[in-house]
Amino acid sequence: MRLVTYTLDDAPARLGAQLDDRVVDLAALAAHHDTALPHDLLTFLRADAGLHDTARRLLAGDPSDWPAAAVHDLGEVVLRAPLRPGKIIGVGLNYVEHVEESSRSLDTDKDLPPRPVLFSKPATAVTGPGQPILHNGNLTRQLDWECELAVVIGRTAFRVSEEDAHDHIFGYSIVNDISARDQRRSGQWFFSKGQDSYAPFGPAVVTADEIADPMALDLELRVNGVTKQKSNTRHMLFPIARLIADISSGVTLEPGDVIATGSPSGVGAGMVPPEFLVPGDTVEATVEHIGTLANPVVDAR
Amino acid sequence: MRLVTYTLDDAPARLGAQLDDRVVDLAALAAHHDTALPHDLLTFLRADAGLHDTARRLLAGDPSDWPAAAVHDLGEVVLRAPLRPGKIIGVGLNYVEHVEESSRSLDTDKDLPPRPVLFSKPATAVTGPGQPILHNGNLTRQLDWECELAVVIGRTAFRVSEEDAHDHIFGYSIVNDISARDQRRSGQWFFSKGQDSYAPFGPAVVTADEIADPMALDLELRVNGVTKQKSNTRHMLFPIARLIADISSGVTLEPGDVIATGSPSGVGAGMVPPEFLVPGDTVEATVEHIGTLANPVVDAR
Repeated sequence: MRLVTYTLDDAPARLGAQLDDRVVDLAALAAHHDTALPHDLLTFLRADAGLHDTARRLLAGDPSDWPAAAVHDLGEVVLRAPLRPGKIIGVGLNYVEHVEESSRSLDTDKDLPPRPVLFSKPATAVTGPGQPILHNGNLTRQLDWECELAVVIGRTAFRVSEEDAHDHIFGYSIVNDISARDQRRSGQWFFSKGQDSYAPFGPAVVTADEIADPMALDLELRVNGVTKQKSNTRHMLFPIARLIADISSGVTLEPGDVIATGSPSGVGAGMVPPEFLVPGDTVEATVEHIGTLANPVVDAR
Repeated sequence: MRLVTYTLDDAPARLGAQLDDRVVDLAALAAHHDTALPHDLLTFLRADAGLHDTARRLLAGDPSDWPAAAVHDLGEVVLRAPLRPGKIIGVGLNYVEHVEESSRSLDTDKDLPPRPVLFSKPATAVTGPGQPILHNGNLTRQLDWECELAVVIGRTAFRVSEEDAHDHIFGYSIVNDISARDQRRSGQWFFSKGQDSYAPFGPAVVTADEIADPMALDLELRVNGVTKQKSNTRHMLFPIARLIADISSGVTLEPGDVIATGSPSGVGAGMVPPEFLVPGDTVEATVEHIGTLANPVVDAR
């Protein structure tokens, strides 16, 4: 399933499944079939597999049976961030070529890190597809992009092995790991990466069963239509299973938590000369099979 | 008010006010007076000042009027972490003498930081008073303590001035900012400070009206009864108002968020030779007017 959180006019956000250019409201579809599905993705992903199967079964039914009130044109709704994560754990320096570029421009070590480099972005940093990335010229002249595959946790994970790690994944999405490079504080990345709107997230969460190999997905990021990053998740230094095993060796991952699995090379700070985002720019982050997360950069001084 | 979250036998956690050696259940007290107060601190602190005044008025009444079911001996209940924060923002290197000790032992700069050094701990790191700090000898040989005044946010803060900062504070508590010094990852502190149980929090939240000057509170930390840290919040490099103004310049602070305002000198890594926590130790963090947060260290391999 390609799950989205959407709003229609001024109504509260609801959980939908995207089928081509239509969004089917899961709770409304279920009610029509005398059953129940949640109105929001967080409740849905915390539920057991039986409920996910119910959703799949209903969506596999004859669309002519669907009630009109449960089906919306994609163009008629606004897609929102899929959910508010309990935590977003980011992985730094997780693509080999980005380690090299970062060591030239961002004071990081030029050797490959022996263990995943972990940081976090707060839930308040999340913004949805199409929503503005806030450029505060009083705080930064170095606003940068990073296209990342996002892993959405479905089942609580603590001390999970690499072998079992994928059992804890609900699905995949995209995070654009925005950074104000000039707001690193004594090397810590929290304020440079944690500001409001610095975690565009979406446009959908694709359930794990529909991604045959998450370690073989093309990624691409464009600024104003010009490609800046182009890689494939196969170039991750620490693969997803290793990340989940490593993080959960000490930190409990909860349903709805998000792991932003790291950025390939091609960030603005690594360009010669460096390039950074300015108000008026549009950033599009694409991950194969998931879609494109596009956000405008706006002046927010 | 000295607000606590407590459990009695196997019942769910509830909000209480501690008066000497008694805990008064706020919802039960309110019900007895034909009014309503929340069962949990997060709902309570999000509510408006009128509701806080109701609680104060009821607690100022004649204790002989209180229903027996609303009053418990302190020894009869278990105090829990006051709440689950949306985010915990930590401040590194915020006491001058700790900057010096840290530069000797922890690879940080010996100059005073020009801006607050910010990091975060996830909500999953929180544990309550008396609960174990998990020592996983497979992950760390350098588990360390940091006694910190915790600021609990009461009103949403975004781009708040230093002058207005205190209007956004609900109250004060204690966080023991536990670190596995040997789990810093390419300098990032998230995994070293963010593991489960690495944020003991409590034992109470004292409302801001009862702390005459939060910038003049004695702090002390003891390991097995031996004093390791002893300072006063007046020695903070960046005072609380500056921290709130600085953080909220880019990151929205929400009700229930916690700022751990930094550790004075006397951490284990700074001792000559270094000293670290081992299973069997007990750590007690005391902040004047707030109390003592005591936690045992247990083997959790």
